[in-house]
Amino acid sequence: MIPARVIEAKRDGEALDAGLLADFLRAYVRGEVPDYQMAAFLMAAYLNGLDDDETEVLVRCMLESGDTLDLSHLPGPRVGKHSTGGVGDKVSLALVPLVAACGVFVPMISGRGLAHTGGTLDKLEAIPGFQTELSLARFKKVLEEVGCAVVGQTTEIAPLDRRLYALRDVTGTVSAPPLIAASIMSKKLAEGLDGLLLDVKVGSGAFIPGEGGASELAETMVKIGRGQGLPTVALLTAMDRPLGNAVGVGLETAEAIRCLRGQGPPDLTELVLIEAAEMVCLADAGATAIEARDRAEAMLSSGAALDRLVRLVEAQGGDTTVVDEPERLATAREKMEVEAQDGGVVVEVRPRVLGEGVIALGGGRVLMHQPIDPGVGFELYVSPGDVVVRGEPIGVVHATDPEGARLGAEVLSRAVRVGRPGDPVVRRELVSRRIDGRTE
Amino acid sequence: MIPARVIEAKRDGEALDAGLLADFLRAYVRGEVPDYQMAAFLMAAYLNGLDDDETEVLVRCMLESGDTLDLSHLPGPRVGKHSTGGVGDKVSLALVPLVAACGVFVPMISGRGLAHTGGTLDKLEAIPGFQTELSLARFKKVLEEVGCAVVGQTTEIAPLDRRLYALRDVTGTVSAPPLIAASIMSKKLAEGLDGLLLDVKVGSGAFIPGEGGASELAETMVKIGRGQGLPTVALLTAMDRPLGNAVGVGLETAEAIRCLRGQGPPDLTELVLIEAAEMVCLADAGATAIEARDRAEAMLSSGAALDRLVRLVEAQGGDTTVVDEPERLATAREKMEVEAQDGGVVVEVRPRVLGEGVIALGGGRVLMHQPIDPGVGFELYVSPGDVVVRGEPIGVVHATDPEGARLGAEVLSRAVRVGRPGDPVVRRELVSRRIDGRTE
Repeated sequence: MIPARVIEAKRDGEALDAGLLADFLRAYVRGEVPDYQMAAFLMAAYLNGLDDDETEVLVRCMLESGDTLDLSHLPGPRVGKHSTGGVGDKVSLALVPLVAACGVFVPMISGRGLAHTGGTLDKLEAIPGFQTELSLARFKKVLEEVGCAVVGQTTEIAPLDRRLYALRDVTGTVSAPPLIAASIMSKKLAEGLDGLLLDVKVGSGAFIPGEGGASELAETMVKIGRGQGLPTVALLTAMDRPLGNAVGVGLETAEAIRCLRGQGPPDLTELVLIEAAEMVCLADAGATAIEARDRAEAMLSSGAALDRLVRLVEAQGGDTTVVDEPERLATAREKMEVEAQDGGVVVEVRPRVLGEGVIALGGGRVLMHQPIDPGVGFELYVSPGDVVVRGEPIGVVHATDPEGARLGAEVLSRAVRVGRPGDPVVRRELVSRRIDGRTE
Repeated sequence: MIPARVIEAKRDGEALDAGLLADFLRAYVRGEVPDYQMAAFLMAAYLNGLDDDETEVLVRCMLESGDTLDLSHLPGPRVGKHSTGGVGDKVSLALVPLVAACGVFVPMISGRGLAHTGGTLDKLEAIPGFQTELSLARFKKVLEEVGCAVVGQTTEIAPLDRRLYALRDVTGTVSAPPLIAASIMSKKLAEGLDGLLLDVKVGSGAFIPGEGGASELAETMVKIGRGQGLPTVALLTAMDRPLGNAVGVGLETAEAIRCLRGQGPPDLTELVLIEAAEMVCLADAGATAIEARDRAEAMLSSGAALDRLVRLVEAQGGDTTVVDEPERLATAREKMEVEAQDGGVVVEVRPRVLGEGVIALGGGRVLMHQPIDPGVGFELYVSPGDVVVRGEPIGVVHATDPEGARLGAEVLSRAVRVGRPGDPVVRRELVSRRIDGRTE
């Protein structure tokens, strides 16, 4: 295997021999192929793509570069979930305990916020005391006792993916569907799952905004799952607007808790129930979609899901009293209500503007390992299609000081675009496509 | 300047801001942009191209990264020459002393063999004692005394180009016209010239075989020359077959010497005269093409050019007796005549097969700084269009031992393709296109 020949073949759009590609990737793992050769390869792969066979080789090499969890001792099916990330996406926080309450084990290796989006780990850590850096032994113990557990990615899982991700981040090769798909799936395949639900965001707030790219990403991940024998379902869900009303680490956690208390915004609650039903079906091949939905609704309305969240928070060292009083997570000192500057129809609520606004308020990261302020962010009173009158409040900014509040108010006004009646409203279907790897 | 943003812009096919691109390149020179970012950029540039403005920025940054020669003290015009390299291309060895004999100073910073092609430095070093590693002071002194001088690239000239070339070599980003053009022109612009002749090879033995790519390369270089105020002429010349009859370091030097003795093969002698006339015109704007050709022919037939070669060899420490007895350069122990296995028309003489054959015989390099055997190679008796009968000799292999001779015979038979009368013959025009940067 001559590294330059492998790079040239990808550069020229040739289909790579599986053995050669694997040799190239393994040589990189061993340190025999330097970063500059891998960077050239990644750019060629970004521009010329990777076909299904090549992507599968990449996933296999990522997987074999590290450990995989063995959870076969658990007395029930394990189903995982991954979201490609969006603004206001706090689904996992409500979904994980809800699905566990339905009798499905949910082992969750999760991530931090990326660019303009928040991460599940950061949101859970907004709960005082909540630990996400568990040993693998502790992770398994929580999972056994509670039915679910959430940790950060460890160095043992798919180290090749970690190295490639760091390299892609600085070489302009992040947003390629096959590379994203391989990165996500290598980590999920290491979780020792019986089924996997993928929430692929589509719209201006997603990492791959377009319908075509998002569909390609979803299809590629479903194909990888099928190739590796993991039943996988992907949903394309709306990210042309924030999900729910809260944007900001702690505010989102509070909203997810309210969702489990039966007080969540309708779009969030609906998506949580849809995804829970999918995961129940993935766990129990015999369950119909209607039965699964019924089971999820029952666990939500009975309070069993909320109870499961309390147990999860307790098991991971967090302060369980915030589950009863989620408003305690809104810790920012300054709150400023923002009024509509014009009357009309809300034609768009721009997720990226709000996500970047959270970073500007100190609630997100520009550099890795930066501390964040979990209290800041936005609460929205309006969503696309609503009619507002001038001077009517459209939301609240949570900031650390008056200057931040003024900045946040400007961001919120910019994010909520008001038009005239009849102007087209930006509002995708909540779930616009479903890809089922078990049947397609 | 954020390096990843520059890479992403090139990846997405955007025109780069000149200041940003220069900042990116200068940061690389200072060691602040690592090789892996540059490798990703080079691959994006390979696949999406560089426009004229971007290429000019690259050339300027290469130039400013090192020293430039000041030859303004010479009492006459300086004209340089560069060939993109081909099999059997020994033009420079005859051309440089011929043009010097015409009263034009020819400062020549030259290269070693690359891939399947031989280099001018290697061919000159086939002459016992000939030194190509001169100090810059010594180089200038030879140039003053003889009118021409040939040295290898020094570390002082365009160090950015050296670093980029080394990186391109191992990242599959060599054969992109703008990158090749910038690399060549940065070195030539550092030579302190008044005019430049470019010999751009086209055909299967060239680095960029296709007419389109070769034309693009030639046009790009001519544009760079014009942008930097250097009068430049480019010729597209035939490399669908070897130039002349000799292929192999010492055999080619001998053939170039014979050319200056009036005994060269017609195609080589014609190309040398064409190029000499171009260089005379570049030096003397008043000379017509016919006058320039006449002057070159006169210097060739009078023996003045041969005399100039003797003075060059002497000044650079070489054994001048080989100029009288060029057959002494054929030092390989084994010579094996090869016969046509079929009768018919020679439809193709494949240059790449012969060039790679020379490497296999030990007369070229696989790794940098490898010693080579200057005596090995091929002498061809036939060229495309010739009719041969079965059993007729088609050439001679020069090898170090009988095993090499057998290998070489197999190579020679494979390189000379014999067809039936009426089969299309691969034989391009010797000069298929001329681009004059002074008028276009």
